[in-house]
Amino acid sequence: MHTIDQYRDLFSDYLSKQTLLKEPLGLYEPVDYIIGIGGKRMRPVLTLMGAEIFDASYKEALPAALAVEMFHNFSLVHDDIMDDAPLRRGNETVHEKWNLNTGILSGDAMLILAYRYFEQYEPETFRDLAKLFSKTALEVCEGQQWDVDFETRDDVTIPEYLKMIEYKTAVLVGAALKMGAIVAKASENDQNLIYDFGRNLGIAFQLQDDYLDAFGDPATFGKQVGGDIIENKKTYLYLKALAFADEKEQLQHLYSISPNDNTDKIDSVKRIFDDSGASEATREAIREYTFKAFGTLAKLTISEDKKFILRNFGENLMNRNV
Amino acid sequence: MHTIDQYRDLFSDYLSKQTLLKEPLGLYEPVDYIIGIGGKRMRPVLTLMGAEIFDASYKEALPAALAVEMFHNFSLVHDDIMDDAPLRRGNETVHEKWNLNTGILSGDAMLILAYRYFEQYEPETFRDLAKLFSKTALEVCEGQQWDVDFETRDDVTIPEYLKMIEYKTAVLVGAALKMGAIVAKASENDQNLIYDFGRNLGIAFQLQDDYLDAFGDPATFGKQVGGDIIENKKTYLYLKALAFADEKEQLQHLYSISPNDNTDKIDSVKRIFDDSGASEATREAIREYTFKAFGTLAKLTISEDKKFILRNFGENLMNRNV
Repeated sequence: MHTIDQYRDLFSDYLSKQTLLKEPLGLYEPVDYIIGIGGKRMRPVLTLMGAEIFDASYKEALPAALAVEMFHNFSLVHDDIMDDAPLRRGNETVHEKWNLNTGILSGDAMLILAYRYFEQYEPETFRDLAKLFSKTALEVCEGQQWDVDFETRDDVTIPEYLKMIEYKTAVLVGAALKMGAIVAKASENDQNLIYDFGRNLGIAFQLQDDYLDAFGDPATFGKQVGGDIIENKKTYLYLKALAFADEKEQLQHLYSISPNDNTDKIDSVKRIFDDSGASEATREAIREYTFKAFGTLAKLTISEDKKFILRNFGENLMNRNV
Repeated sequence: MHTIDQYRDLFSDYLSKQTLLKEPLGLYEPVDYIIGIGGKRMRPVLTLMGAEIFDASYKEALPAALAVEMFHNFSLVHDDIMDDAPLRRGNETVHEKWNLNTGILSGDAMLILAYRYFEQYEPETFRDLAKLFSKTALEVCEGQQWDVDFETRDDVTIPEYLKMIEYKTAVLVGAALKMGAIVAKASENDQNLIYDFGRNLGIAFQLQDDYLDAFGDPATFGKQVGGDIIENKKTYLYLKALAFADEKEQLQHLYSISPNDNTDKIDSVKRIFDDSGASEATREAIREYTFKAFGTLAKLTISEDKKFILRNFGENLMNRNV
């Protein structure tokens, strides 16, 4: 086994040896650009780790890891169009740097490219990987659609919200790990357990993202603290507060305005989050999903050392050290 | 074997039994809508025919045929966004009926759904189908990119143009047939021959489309005759005329203007197409690619009856009777 930093370097090394740039450049330059911008490479790292947890070499999992990273970048390119986002990881988004059509078409090419990396495996493994990939990719689309739908709905329930973040974010975390397990030919039971570990950890991570967006340390969070409140985004915190708060109408009012100076709005909303018990309920949900993830580790038929590595990864992830 | 009309009905029947509508409706309603609008279903018909040519039942090829049709519709949805087209087959395009984001996301879902239909085959067939599909899908994206690039280039060569229409249109015709052959476990040699038959026929068909756009019968062509000339589209006719014509500068001038009344422009351009020999050269190229297609039939290890069926399909296609 290797450390997370080592897996990241091994993946970056593999990525740098790929020839992504080819004709027509108008199609492939944006692919090379967005995947080159980087990011934490968390998903491909998980695929490499997933393989070594089940006693395969990380090397066997490199093509699958690249497929996962390529898919993730496809979804970023298309999501950035849908969100009209100008920046991604501090750099211009593809549709900004080029144009809308390039964003659509290069994104499409990335989705197809992802499938092609699986072709390096023998038929049974290829099919298992591609099946999991298609199921996951479709769920990610569904999660994105739920997220869009929720913007204009005022009756979103907590279970619906949890399903949305599960599909939009968490299933790909589970799938990244499971792909490593598939490459390593782990038992179906172990494959499903490692998937559940990743999925639950992914839900915990996204709930924590909601929490930190309001209560995080501006110095370390990386995004603008209060951003979700400014955008009236219906997060777990908001939905819980709406369910709990005596000041339900005040909260709905605050979520209907867009003042020039958001300081007072953010302060008032955060006070309602705290007073209503929504903050505590969110912290509790984060704990619950983290424990659920760690609970599945116990059932895996791997050595205690390897369980420790997965637990350690989970703790580092939740402490935002990776 | 069945007739083309029978294959079309058999496919429509299979399609009507699929449950495409599910939650979230915002994602799947547009999928159900665009695939329901119909069209000639030429590509899935070819997949069913490809299977029976090599002695399998069309039934085995139905999921692959659906994958081909789903992919074709994905490409229509994304292309219509890129072309800003309001109508498709006389109905509103997806991004017009819903919005841009729905067009992007539902298109993405259709591309993924296409892959999922292959899951009904055993691993070796699954991998062969998915590999061919990915290769073809990427070529279609590349063809689309070349087409976009050519709009702003004034040095497009005939070989470049031929490659563009091959990728954008013809490879999917070849792949549709080959998928049937894969399902029927035809020999690799036969698979490649039937692919070449479809690919060359697809090129001939697209060249004929260019030709008919200028010289077709308005009563039967289905599109506005002269549409390419109005839009200054660099077709095979135009590129050949540019290479041949004494009136090269006049042609370039005509292709730089957008008058309110296009009657004179269309007449003048068509006269240059005829006088320069571009019209005859285009008819010759259509014949050449049609013969090339029919030439591959001779090498197939199938009965003369089946060769007759393929040739008959080709002739009907080129006579625009299918």
